[in-house]
Amino acid sequence: MSAKRPSKRELQALLQRARFVRDYGMRLHAVSDAECTIAMPFRKSLERPGGTVNGPAFMAAADCAMWLAIKRHIGIEHDAVTSELNTAFLNAARRQTVYCTARVLKTGKRILYGTAECHDGKGKLFTHHTVTYARVS
Amino acid sequence: MSAKRPSKRELQALLQRARFVRDYGMRLHAVSDAECTIAMPFRKSLERPGGTVNGPAFMAAADCAMWLAIKRHIGIEHDAVTSELNTAFLNAARRQTVYCTARVLKTGKRILYGTAECHDGKGKLFTHHTVTYARVS
Amino acid sequence: MSAKRPSKRELQALLQRARFVRDYGMRLHAVSDAECTIAMPFRKSLERPGGTVNGPAFMAAADCAMWLAIKRHIGIEHDAVTSELNTAFLNAARRQTVYCTARVLKTGKRILYGTAECHDGKGKLFTHHTVTYARVS
Amino acid sequence: MSAKRPSKRELQALLQRARFVRDYGMRLHAVSDAECTIAMPFRKSLERPGGTVNGPAFMAAADCAMWLAIKRHIGIEHDAVTSELNTAFLNAARRQTVYCTARVLKTGKRILYGTAECHDGKGKLFTHHTVTYARVS
Repeated sequence: MSAKRPSKRELQALLQRARFVRDYGMRLHAVSDAECTIAMPFRKSLERPGGTVNGPAFMAAADCAMWLAIKRHIGIEHDAVTSELNTAFLNAARRQTVYCTARVLKTGKRILYGTAECHDGKGKLFTHHTVTYARVS
Repeated sequence: MSAKRPSKRELQALLQRARFVRDYGMRLHAVSDAECTIAMPFRKSLERPGGTVNGPAFMAAADCAMWLAIKRHIGIEHDAVTSELNTAFLNAARRQTVYCTARVLKTGKRILYGTAECHDGKGKLFTHHTVTYARVS
Repeated sequence: MSAKRPSKRELQALLQRARFVRDYGMRLHAVSDAECTIAMPFRKSLERPGGTVNGPAFMAAADCAMWLAIKRHIGIEHDAVTSELNTAFLNAARRQTVYCTARVLKTGKRILYGTAECHDGKGKLFTHHTVTYARVS
Repeated sequence: MSAKRPSKRELQALLQRARFVRDYGMRLHAVSDAECTIAMPFRKSLERPGGTVNGPAFMAAADCAMWLAIKRHIGIEHDAVTSELNTAFLNAARRQTVYCTARVLKTGKRILYGTAECHDGKGKLFTHHTVTYARVS
């Protein structure tokens, strides 16, 4: 029901209250019923030797982008938790802002499933993910 | 060739030099030709709201344990990079030391594949992973 | 509750009634609370050019072995459907009986998760799988 | 190099020579540098009880569509084999033609990675896959 779909402003506020992901500096970049994109600016704590973004940062971004995309679908008052997160590392990111775009492909009664892609602003892919959430309420 | 297989001491030294994973406080717990176990003591930076260990920490542990297990198989002088990391979240860990045990199931010319499990000291599973590395040298 | 756990005989009968998997010739080989092993004898319809067992046959075996392992855990009267099946192809099987051993790692209220391995009788691995089932009753 | 990219006609001929996949009745539907779509008409042998398409058929379609998409990228004279195939089952297909669209997201020196989606002609998804191939020549 469209009445339950949170706005970009409401999702941004939700993200700001989530201390854990906020520590990564993630911001909501764009959201629609089709997809949700966050931005994760480069910071020293994301760096691994050689000046590239570390793997856990990509996985945290995928999880966060899918969480917001799911909240858009099921409403802020409902909850779901990550049950599976699959990651393929495709290209390195170098001291740059990483965008992550999540799409929900299935909204089931028990399981939500979708994809997330980390990329630069021009379409180059860093990682590809599939993400499964289990509803808890 | 067994002559190339690094000892626990050599792998521990390798881990100490890896600044990124060292920041998680990971230590080599046990290693054999069959499997490799690391320990990741609880620290504030691994915590997410509610007092549980955050997802990226488990994934970092799986990647690290598999990396050492692979070094045991191919030798420290050879290298491989993570190409895929799949994670299933099974049970929460609460402010406790997380152990992660990795097993290499295939050592191919191009690809190495195995499993990793994060668990407490008594066999309770927190996460289950499959990990794929691509050889680069 | 152990009272609900079906015996090997009951699971074998269940498998015989499942026309689809029966067409693969799968038989229940062994079952315990810890794991379930089926046997899939070689037949022409499983062959791909070069005399090896085809990929869909391994995936069907993994799905079947996990289904029986889950029935052992939740009881024959309860049901669950495959929601995800991940496969890594490790070694080829050549005109030989393939065994598949499944282990349930988590029995949740919504999701069941485990691993399956296709192997010969001596421990050589052909494929490694992770399997997720969603409960429907 | 565009000179090496096989045409739709050449890929269709390649598919016709592949006896194993031909038994599923798969046909090349459309191909471009971006993606490759095959069609798998419904037939009795794909059915499982209840009149739905069985899981191994979807997985065979995903593997086949990705194989052709990869041949388009690397040329018919080069070869690669499936190393991983991950499947999420999203919606049932009922006695109908299944289309499968594959996209190559990375063409590496050792590994090729992409996604495949089985769907009806109007965009409804049946399954979502990630597929990894390892180059052998």
